[in-house]
Amino acid sequence: MPSGRYGASMGTYIRKSLESVAAYAPGEQPREATVVKLNTNENPYPPSPRVLEAIRAFGVEALRRYPDPTCTALRQRLASMHGVAADQVFVGNGSDEVLTLCTRAFVERDEAIGYFDVSYSLYPVLAELQEVARRPVDLGPDFAWRMPADYQAALFFLANPNAPTGIRFDGAQVERFCRGFSGVVLIDEAYVDFAEADCVAIARALPNVLVARTLSKSYSLAGLRLGYAVGPAPLIEALQKIKDSYNVNAFTQAVGLAALGDLEYMRTNAARIKATRERARAALLGQGHQVYPSETNFLWLRPARLSAQEVFAGVRRHGIVIRYFPGAKTGDFLRVTVGTDADMDRFLAAMDVVTGRAS
Amino acid sequence: MPSGRYGASMGTYIRKSLESVAAYAPGEQPREATVVKLNTNENPYPPSPRVLEAIRAFGVEALRRYPDPTCTALRQRLASMHGVAADQVFVGNGSDEVLTLCTRAFVERDEAIGYFDVSYSLYPVLAELQEVARRPVDLGPDFAWRMPADYQAALFFLANPNAPTGIRFDGAQVERFCRGFSGVVLIDEAYVDFAEADCVAIARALPNVLVARTLSKSYSLAGLRLGYAVGPAPLIEALQKIKDSYNVNAFTQAVGLAALGDLEYMRTNAARIKATRERARAALLGQGHQVYPSETNFLWLRPARLSAQEVFAGVRRHGIVIRYFPGAKTGDFLRVTVGTDADMDRFLAAMDVVTGRAS
Repeated sequence: MPSGRYGASMGTYIRKSLESVAAYAPGEQPREATVVKLNTNENPYPPSPRVLEAIRAFGVEALRRYPDPTCTALRQRLASMHGVAADQVFVGNGSDEVLTLCTRAFVERDEAIGYFDVSYSLYPVLAELQEVARRPVDLGPDFAWRMPADYQAALFFLANPNAPTGIRFDGAQVERFCRGFSGVVLIDEAYVDFAEADCVAIARALPNVLVARTLSKSYSLAGLRLGYAVGPAPLIEALQKIKDSYNVNAFTQAVGLAALGDLEYMRTNAARIKATRERARAALLGQGHQVYPSETNFLWLRPARLSAQEVFAGVRRHGIVIRYFPGAKTGDFLRVTVGTDADMDRFLAAMDVVTGRAS
Repeated sequence: MPSGRYGASMGTYIRKSLESVAAYAPGEQPREATVVKLNTNENPYPPSPRVLEAIRAFGVEALRRYPDPTCTALRQRLASMHGVAADQVFVGNGSDEVLTLCTRAFVERDEAIGYFDVSYSLYPVLAELQEVARRPVDLGPDFAWRMPADYQAALFFLANPNAPTGIRFDGAQVERFCRGFSGVVLIDEAYVDFAEADCVAIARALPNVLVARTLSKSYSLAGLRLGYAVGPAPLIEALQKIKDSYNVNAFTQAVGLAALGDLEYMRTNAARIKATRERARAALLGQGHQVYPSETNFLWLRPARLSAQEVFAGVRRHGIVIRYFPGAKTGDFLRVTVGTDADMDRFLAAMDVVTGRAS
């Protein structure tokens, strides 16, 4: 029996830095069919009919062979969508993979990764997994942009619109920051199809800026795992170099291409979700809650009269799952995915009861 | 315009160690439909009919939602296949992902990764990408097992059967090595369904041994990207901790489960390929070539009369693509995937012409 490199216990086979790592916790996937699921920012509408056509047309021969390692057709399609060359597009196994690869491609061992506090809770986990320093930046009151003048890091994860707050940072502000920043800025636009503006022009113009997108939200394809990055060819080439050879499977490439061929469908759905979002926000404001302006498919709110945790538990008893993030900066708030109009009516009625207005 | 962290050029945004990295080069995927493709160890037969059924039954609702982040059903199925608990199984986006995660989970920054020379050419690339030392071990004459008595590393990638040689190392020899080794041994059994024995019992018994498998070869599912590891729960837990949350998409989980539900089909195909392999090997020996005994779905041969490179180019002119690895230890050899009987007849006829016997 080997004794391990540092002693007799089995844990010593594992990198020490991982002991303290708490893996990122994905939102609950409840099993009851009747539950209204407003906790993981999934799209309530099905993907484009062209996705189903692509599934029906998908043959086993594409599974027998290795997939295209560089996603040629997808990259060409995305390049033409965003007005860049194909070598300015990287395609990943979800945008999660894009983010992970950025930590491996752009950060030396003695450098740091930055991100806003609060923002997507995966960012600090990725820095820990790569065993590099974290350099979070506190947001201002009401989660507004606030960046120290001398702030630097090797990589900055900038969710825009931000999550879980739903707030979009102004493009000119973002561009000024990118121009003064000495590292790479990954602008994570997971929710941008629900927003009023995007930052792709910055990634087209500057040598240190990538924009990441996902098909999980606006395209209703969270189960497909397809994300991508757009930006300067040298940064894209570095990601290509370090990815697993066949990181995106043949099915995901075929179905993703079909979905991207029907932007009109995606945009119509996004517009519908935005309308539902504004209606729900107005109703929640009417119930007395503090609700932030959202450019995403979720609402970030501070409930009136009860604590966020009480409201979370209360609506759960009504069969509605929303998201609660414990912690000093997030513990007073709730994140609610925008579902269908019927979903939101059920949520609003439950809120009325739970937070005491209808009693 | 930012000046970059180390100067004015764009390359400085990228980790220095990546400059020297040559990305792993996957085998050519020729576009001509008439080419006989014997270069990437794909299975010449289609996957189980249950795979097609699973594709036809696959609905868009599974794409709208996030996939099961821990592949519960797949892990249970694999656990029962291998006589272990579900927490002793890790499922990855191809076994490539399993290998990459091992370099991130089990190797400190000042430690080393070991592997045989020659073996799968991805292993040194993975060590470079993780920026840790490489400690290759020269194989003996005819690529036989030869391990220095005092050899140690944090992680050893042990392909068994080995690639590209096709030779299986004896299980007792492997187990002795694992018992004396202070790090983690990843036994890469990508080709084991074409072999006479496997090493899963070692991974069940020892605290430092994982076995990796793939559905790419024996299950005819290279395009699906599904690999897995079996072994001690603490090692598996470390992989779970560092993987991307949703690393295996909903389609791959559903189709993989269908394929694993029809082991009989896989075994029948593997037996057919083994029979073809032995017939082809006998014929090549008859042509005067040196052909190693193979327990995989490929043959490793040293051609008679002409150089390996000449033979590679010669059979290419006959519409047959095989694999040639330049380099001191591999440059005299060719790797030929075992296709159908008809594929191999065409290859054998071309060899006869190219290597001068039939002229």
